[in-house]
Amino acid sequence: MRYFMIFSYDGTNYKGYQKQPGKKTIQNTIEDILFKLNGEQDVNICATGRTDAGVHALNQKAHFDLNKDIDESKLKDSLNKMLPDDIYVKSIEKTTPDFHARFSVKAKEYIYKINLGEYNPIEKNYVYQFNKRLDINEMERALKYLEGEHNFKSFTKSTDEINDYTRTILQTSITRDIKNSNVIIISLVGTGFLRYMVRNIVGLLIEIGEGKRKSEDVFEILAFENREAAGITAPPNGLYLKDVFY
Amino acid sequence: MRYFMIFSYDGTNYKGYQKQPGKKTIQNTIEDILFKLNGEQDVNICATGRTDAGVHALNQKAHFDLNKDIDESKLKDSLNKMLPDDIYVKSIEKTTPDFHARFSVKAKEYIYKINLGEYNPIEKNYVYQFNKRLDINEMERALKYLEGEHNFKSFTKSTDEINDYTRTILQTSITRDIKNSNVIIISLVGTGFLRYMVRNIVGLLIEIGEGKRKSEDVFEILAFENREAAGITAPPNGLYLKDVFY
Repeated sequence: MRYFMIFSYDGTNYKGYQKQPGKKTIQNTIEDILFKLNGEQDVNICATGRTDAGVHALNQKAHFDLNKDIDESKLKDSLNKMLPDDIYVKSIEKTTPDFHARFSVKAKEYIYKINLGEYNPIEKNYVYQFNKRLDINEMERALKYLEGEHNFKSFTKSTDEINDYTRTILQTSITRDIKNSNVIIISLVGTGFLRYMVRNIVGLLIEIGEGKRKSEDVFEILAFENREAAGITAPPNGLYLKDVFY
Repeated sequence: MRYFMIFSYDGTNYKGYQKQPGKKTIQNTIEDILFKLNGEQDVNICATGRTDAGVHALNQKAHFDLNKDIDESKLKDSLNKMLPDDIYVKSIEKTTPDFHARFSVKAKEYIYKINLGEYNPIEKNYVYQFNKRLDINEMERALKYLEGEHNFKSFTKSTDEINDYTRTILQTSITRDIKNSNVIIISLVGTGFLRYMVRNIVGLLIEIGEGKRKSEDVFEILAFENREAAGITAPPNGLYLKDVFY
């Protein structure tokens, strides 16, 4: 029986989403509980993709198979009772065996929050505390240049060995937080993202916002197809997997 | 030389504001650093009042005396460099020796955040996750009955031995979070608050919002002058010392 699950988590105290032996990760934590609920049989959760240590998810999605046919709402309640308070299952429904949480993804939205105002200790794990001014207009221009289909090799970990670095960014925006205009929210919707791609894009945007680079540099950086070209990696704490679309 | 300091903190990982031997508290943490900056001489911080374990402060205020005359902005920078990232000094200025951060207080504002919507793991330490509907109108009515000068003995820890339980609540409100209408923010401005008073008021408001009690019960509870009369204590994580007025 295949189940489709939507869940959220605070990534602060985890070594990322993906299972790693001997480490506290989101996947390990949920699978350990599903193992118990599945009559002590291993369960493999297949999520839409991994998130790095310290990165949060508002609507992560995944499928998994159980030997037993458990009522969805009972399964949701059991999981939430047994899960630590920084992971929450929002919904579970049964799905068809051909549904695949990763392969079926049409698009994903990530958001990244930056505080340009005074340091805020209460939001330190949830908003990147940059605490300096940035030229938002110049950042917005650069972000627009990144829309469309590009080879994003300059924006991913250089050691990754993959064949195709082409991804399509469908939509981007930078908005100010409605409650605090010193906090900006960068949104990126794309068909898929390479490892560290969002944080590397945000890192470049920050350098552009500081005036260290110009928005037009984006073209050269994309063409260079080399991680060295793009600049810093923004810290994980401001990043959220906001939604996944099928 | 007397200094006046405004500071904010995330109370999640502290055993409250007030100094306690062998425990990690906000006061201990700041005083340990001031000890170093004051030529290894003890410094006693006098804040506007204590906050409980898990309670946050957006604008806590305090005075302290140093043997040395240190430039305010250098002192602020040194403190922020040495403090952990969940405490932040917003400003420091020199003040007169007769200024007293606690005795001079005219009023304080506390806010309390409650999530009536779906459980949110990312805000678990910053918004009380009640996750059920409440009758806000009935709660607002009860809150209005608490305005003015009253004996608040029913709203404080029964073991506390103090002479005068009279306090004045100047202003109250319940608003919905502009970004998430499922989150309500209860604000209380008063000349002073007894220990646990805000959390006990919020606890009663929750029982009223659930329909377990009526808003008019407030009069009886105040008149009873006994902690047993009032009901539950709301958890600390939703509470913020928002501001202190002189």
